[in-house]
Amino acid sequence: MTTESTAMPETLLQPLISDEIPKWRDQITIRGLVVSAVLGTLFCILEHRLSLAAGIVPAMNIVAALLSFFIVKMWTSFWSKFGFSTIPFTKQENTVIQTCIVACYGVAVSGGFSTYLLAMDERMYQLVGVDYPGNRPEDVKNPGLGWMICFLFGVSFLGIFSIVSLRKVMIVDYDLAYPTGTATAVLINSFHTNTGLADNQASYVGKFFTLSFCWSCFKWFFSGVDDSCGFDHFPSLGLTLMKYSFYFDFNPSFIGCGLICPHQVNCSILLGAIIFQGFLLPYISKQSGIWYQDNLHDSDLKGLGGYKILMSISLILGDGIYNLIKIAVLTLKKMQNSPKQDDLPICNNGTSSKLILELRNEMFLKDRISPWNAGFGFISMAVISALTIPIIFPQLKWYLVLISSVLAPIFAFCNSYGTGLTDMSMLTTYGKIGIFIIASLVGTNGGVIAGLSGCGAIITSASSASDLMQDFKTGYLTLTSSKAMFISQLAGTAIGCIVAPLTFWLYWNAFDIGSPDGPYPAPYAILFRQMAILGVSGFSQLPKYSLVIFCSFLMLGLVLNILRDVVSSKSSRFIPIPTAMAIPIFVGGNFAIDMFVGTVIGYVWERRNEKNAEDYGSSVASGLICGDGLWTIPCAILSISRINPPICMDFRPSLSR
Amino acid sequence: MTTESTAMPETLLQPLISDEIPKWRDQITIRGLVVSAVLGTLFCILEHRLSLAAGIVPAMNIVAALLSFFIVKMWTSFWSKFGFSTIPFTKQENTVIQTCIVACYGVAVSGGFSTYLLAMDERMYQLVGVDYPGNRPEDVKNPGLGWMICFLFGVSFLGIFSIVSLRKVMIVDYDLAYPTGTATAVLINSFHTNTGLADNQASYVGKFFTLSFCWSCFKWFFSGVDDSCGFDHFPSLGLTLMKYSFYFDFNPSFIGCGLICPHQVNCSILLGAIIFQGFLLPYISKQSGIWYQDNLHDSDLKGLGGYKILMSISLILGDGIYNLIKIAVLTLKKMQNSPKQDDLPICNNGTSSKLILELRNEMFLKDRISPWNAGFGFISMAVISALTIPIIFPQLKWYLVLISSVLAPIFAFCNSYGTGLTDMSMLTTYGKIGIFIIASLVGTNGGVIAGLSGCGAIITSASSASDLMQDFKTGYLTLTSSKAMFISQLAGTAIGCIVAPLTFWLYWNAFDIGSPDGPYPAPYAILFRQMAILGVSGFSQLPKYSLVIFCSFLMLGLVLNILRDVVSSKSSRFIPIPTAMAIPIFVGGNFAIDMFVGTVIGYVWERRNEKNAEDYGSSVASGLICGDGLWTIPCAILSISRINPPICMDFRPSLSR
Repeated sequence: MTTESTAMPETLLQPLISDEIPKWRDQITIRGLVVSAVLGTLFCILEHRLSLAAGIVPAMNIVAALLSFFIVKMWTSFWSKFGFSTIPFTKQENTVIQTCIVACYGVAVSGGFSTYLLAMDERMYQLVGVDYPGNRPEDVKNPGLGWMICFLFGVSFLGIFSIVSLRKVMIVDYDLAYPTGTATAVLINSFHTNTGLADNQASYVGKFFTLSFCWSCFKWFFSGVDDSCGFDHFPSLGLTLMKYSFYFDFNPSFIGCGLICPHQVNCSILLGAIIFQGFLLPYISKQSGIWYQDNLHDSDLKGLGGYKILMSISLILGDGIYNLIKIAVLTLKKMQNSPKQDDLPICNNGTSSKLILELRNEMFLKDRISPWNAGFGFISMAVISALTIPIIFPQLKWYLVLISSVLAPIFAFCNSYGTGLTDMSMLTTYGKIGIFIIASLVGTNGGVIAGLSGCGAIITSASSASDLMQDFKTGYLTLTSSKAMFISQLAGTAIGCIVAPLTFWLYWNAFDIGSPDGPYPAPYAILFRQMAILGVSGFSQLPKYSLVIFCSFLMLGLVLNILRDVVSSKSSRFIPIPTAMAIPIFVGGNFAIDMFVGTVIGYVWERRNEKNAEDYGSSVASGLICGDGLWTIPCAILSISRINPPICMDFRPSLSR
Repeated sequence: MTTESTAMPETLLQPLISDEIPKWRDQITIRGLVVSAVLGTLFCILEHRLSLAAGIVPAMNIVAALLSFFIVKMWTSFWSKFGFSTIPFTKQENTVIQTCIVACYGVAVSGGFSTYLLAMDERMYQLVGVDYPGNRPEDVKNPGLGWMICFLFGVSFLGIFSIVSLRKVMIVDYDLAYPTGTATAVLINSFHTNTGLADNQASYVGKFFTLSFCWSCFKWFFSGVDDSCGFDHFPSLGLTLMKYSFYFDFNPSFIGCGLICPHQVNCSILLGAIIFQGFLLPYISKQSGIWYQDNLHDSDLKGLGGYKILMSISLILGDGIYNLIKIAVLTLKKMQNSPKQDDLPICNNGTSSKLILELRNEMFLKDRISPWNAGFGFISMAVISALTIPIIFPQLKWYLVLISSVLAPIFAFCNSYGTGLTDMSMLTTYGKIGIFIIASLVGTNGGVIAGLSGCGAIITSASSASDLMQDFKTGYLTLTSSKAMFISQLAGTAIGCIVAPLTFWLYWNAFDIGSPDGPYPAPYAILFRQMAILGVSGFSQLPKYSLVIFCSFLMLGLVLNILRDVVSSKSSRFIPIPTAMAIPIFVGGNFAIDMFVGTVIGYVWERRNEKNAEDYGSSVASGLICGDGLWTIPCAILSISRINPPICMDFRPSLSR
C-alpha cells in the first residue's frame, strides 16, 4: 500500500547538496548532549506541571528545535567572539539534539506520572471511594523514586527497539507524511540556509510562522475560562453541525497538517468523521438505556466511551495488523529471493526530483542499524523487564510482562503508522486497552495494579515509537544519519528515565499532588484507576454488541486494506484508510474539518500552480504548525502563572437570551 | 493644500489608451437611460423599504455599476445573438449609467421620506405626544404626491449646480481619494478590459471581491438580532478599549478605504478618534448633571449629542470655509493674471505615469461645463425654489428659502470634500444643523415645519454634491466625459424626483407607515420632529460652553489649514486634516482603527514593493470595498424577508457569568 505522495518540497535541499554532511559520529556532540539534557529537564518540568495541573500534554518538537538552535547558536557565537574556534553548527547536529530532547521529555509524558503510576497511590484509592466496588486497599503503591526509575528503564526501550527496523518501510516505502516531523525539518532547514530557493522557503516559513503565532495569541485572549469559550468552539458551520462536533475552529496547526498530509488521508479523516460523529455515535447514544446503562458519562467505558474505544481500536488494529503481516511477508520473500538489503520497491509517484530523493535515501540508509542488533536489544529488554518488573509489582507476573512486551510492538507500530498518516497520537486509547487486557487477565486479585503497570509498557512503547518515527522523518529531510538519530533517541530516553522521575519527585515532595482542590489535581489519574477497576471485572462489563462491533470494524479495517492492494492503483486512491477514519472518533469532527480545509487549500494551489505548491507548500504548512506550536510555551507559562484569558467569546442561538 | 497622492494604480489604463474613447454624446445612450430608470426605481424601492423599516441607508454605487454592466451586457449579447448589430458597450457608457442610477436613488435617500418629510405628518405629531411642549397640531403636513414631487424638484438641483464647477479643484488639484468612486472605477475598468497589467489587476479585484463578499456573508451568520452581537462588536483590542469604541471590527470596506485614502488622512482620523472618543467625549460625559441635564440619551442635542454635533460641524466648517475662500481667492487671482482656463497648478507628487495622468486630465477637462451655465442654473433654481416652496410650506418664507440656498453650497462643499477625504458622508449631521438654524430663525410660530422643510435643501445638496464628486472621480478614472456625467446626474436626479415620491407613495398607501409596532416604524422620523421642536427654542437649549466649544474648534480648523499652507511641504504632512479628525466623533473609533489597518497594510506594502503596491493597491482595495458593497443586496433581501442571523456571537469578561 502506498499513500499518495505528500506535498513535500522536493527541491528543498537542492542548494544544500554541496554542503558537507558530517559523519554520523560528528553529528553527536558533547555540547549537543549538554543542551539536550538541560532543555530536556526543562521540558520535563513543564510537562509535569501542565499534566498534573490540567491534564494537558502539548507536543514540543518544534519548540525543542527552535530553542536548541538558538542556544547552540549563542554558544558558538559567544566562544567565537572570544577567539575560540568551534565546530560549525550543522542542521544534522540540530536534528540530533532535537531528537534527544523529545525522547527525554517523552518519558515524562508517557511515564504515567499524572495517569497510570499516580493512579496506584493512596490518595487516588481514597478519591475513588473506599466503598467503591472493586477498589481494594491492597491495590495501592505510592510513588517512590527508586522503583519508578527502574520501572521506566524496564519499559521505555521496548518501543524503540521494536520499531527502528521499520524506519525504511515507514519513511521511504510508505512515504508517510509525519506532519510535525516534516514541519520541524523545514524549520531546521530554514535556519541553516541562506541561498536561493531555500531562502525563499525560509521566508515563507517565517511569514506563516509569525502569522500563526500571532493568530494563536489573538485567539487566546477570547478563550475565557469556561469550556465553551473562544475560537475553539466557533460554530462556523452553524449550531446544528456544531452539536455533532462539525465546525471549523481556525486552528493553524491542523490546517498545516492538512496541507502536508496526502489528500487521501484527509478525505479518509473527513469520511470517518461523517460516519462516526455524524451518524454512528449519535445513533448509539440514542440507545442509551437499551444497549447500556442510562446516565453514564460520555467517556464511560461501560457506555458510549466503550463503543468509541472499541470502534477506533478495532479499525486501527485491523489496519495495523494487515500492514505488519504484509511487511513481514514481503521481507521474508525478499530474504528468500536475494539477501540484499533494499528490495522493497521505493514508491514515489514521479513528482520528486530524483537527485534529492536519491541523496535523501542514500543518507537515510547509509549508516545501518542492524535488525539483528535491534532484535537482540528488544529481546534482552523484554527479558530484563520480565525479571525485574515483577519485583516492583508482585501482582504483575513475569509472563504478563512478556505478554505486554509482545503487545507493545503492535501498538507501537499502529501508533507510529497512525501518527505518520494523521499526526495524531492515540496514546490514551492504547493505554486503556492495555489496562483492560492485563487487568482482566489477572482478575480481582491484584488486577488493578497489574493493569496499571502493564499498560506502562504499552503506552511508553506507543509513545516512543511515534516520537522516533517523527524524528526519523525530520532526520530524513535534514539528511541526518539515522544511526546518529537512533543513538540520540536511546540517550535521550535514558536521560528521561532518570530526569523525569527526579523532576516529578520535586513536585511530589513540594505539593499536595492529586488533591482535587489543590493546584495539581492530576485529573486523569482517578479515571485510570476507575478504568483498571472496571477491567478487573473483565469484558462482561462492556456494553451490548461490543464484540460484534469490534469484530466487524476489525474486518472492515482488513477488507479495506485488501481492497486497496487488489484494485488498480488508480481506483485505490478512492479507498479510505482505516486508521485515518478512526482518528475523529475521539478527536471530533472539527479536527477533520481543519485538515480538510488544509487539503482543499493544497489542492487548489496545486491545480493553479503546481511548481509553486510543490516548492512552498510544506514551508507554509510548517510555518503554520510551528507558529502555533511555539505559542504552547507562552500559553503554558500564562496557565502556570494562573493568568486567565480576559474575554470569553461565546455563541448562542440569536433568538434566545 | 495638497493631500498625499493616493495609492492609485497610475498604470491602470495604460493598455486602454489605444481604445477609442467615444464622444460625450455617444456616452449617453437610450438603452442606458432605460436601464438607469429601471434600476433606479428598483433601488428607490429598496432604499425606502430599508430606511422605513430600520433606518439603514446602504450605499449602492458598486451594486449599480455591477448590475448595469450585467444587464447591458446581456442586452447586447441577446440582440447580437439574433444577428442585430448593437453599439459596443464601453466603460464610459457604464459609468454614465451608474451615475444616473446613483443620482436617481440618491433622491430617495436624501428626500427625507423616512426622516424630515415624514416627521411633519399627523402620526409623528401624535407619537411625540400631544402634551409635549412645543408640539403643536398646526405643525402637521401629511405626505402628498404632488407637493413632494414639486418640493424635490425645487431643492434637489441646488447642490449639483453649486459644486460642479469645483470638480477640477477636487479631483485634479486636491487629488482627493473618494474611495467608493475609485473602487467603482476600478471595478468598471476591470469589467471592460482583458489585456496585460489591467488583466492582472482585474484578477486581484476578483479575488479580493470574492474574499470580501464571503467574509461579509460569514460575518452575517453570527450577528444575531441584538445590538451587541457579531464581528461588528468584536473587542479585538480588549474590553476596556471597546468601551471607548476602539476595536478592530474586521470590516473589509473600511480597510479598503484605508488603503485608498492617503496616510495623512487615515492618521488624522485615528488622531481625531483618540482625541474625541478617547478623551474629550468621556470627559464631557463625566460632566453630565453639571454642564447639562442628567439622564439624557447620548444622542440628545441638549446633552452629549449637542457637543458631538458642535465639535464635528465646527471643525468641518472651519476646514471647509478656509478651503472655499482659498479656492475663491486663487480663482480671482488667476482671472486677473491670465484669462486662460487652467492655471491652478496640478499637484501630483511624481509617482504617476505622466502619460496616463495627462490623458486623464485631458479627457476630464475636455468637454467644458461653463461656470456661467452652472451659476445660472444655481441662481435660477434658487429663485424658482424661493417662489414655489413657500406655496407648499407657508411657514417657510421666501427669504428663508434663499438663506437655505446660500447655506446649501457651503454644506455641499464640506460634504463632498469630507467624502473625498474619508468616504464618510455626514448627511444627518448637516441636516440637524440645518433644522436648528432655520427653526430657531422662525421661532415658535411655524418653526417646526420651516426647520424640517428648510433642512431639505441642505440635505439634498450635501447628498447630491458628494454623489456627484464620487461619480466624477469614477469618471476621471474611466476616462469618461465630465459633461456626459453631469448631464447624466441631472437626468438621474430628475428621474429620482418623480420616481422616489411615487415609490414612497406605494408604501404609504399599502402600509401603516410610522406605526411603532408595524413593519415600517421609520425610526428616525420621530427624532427629526423632536429636533425641530428643540430648534424652535433656539440656541439657548444647547448645553453649557457650546459657543466656546464651537468657536474654538472652528478656529482650530482654520489654524490647522493655515499652518499647513505656511510650513514647508515636508512638515505639512504631519499636520492633521480637520475634516478627517471630525469624522470619528460620530462614527466611532472602530472606523478609525479599520482605516488605520488599511493604511498600515498599504505602508508596509509600499515599503516592501513599491511598484507592486502602486499597480495593485487600489485593485485590492476596490475588491474589498466592492465585495462588502455587494453583500448589502442579499443582506437587505434577508432583512426584508425577516430572516434573522441564526447565531449571536457575544463577548463578556471571562470571570463573570
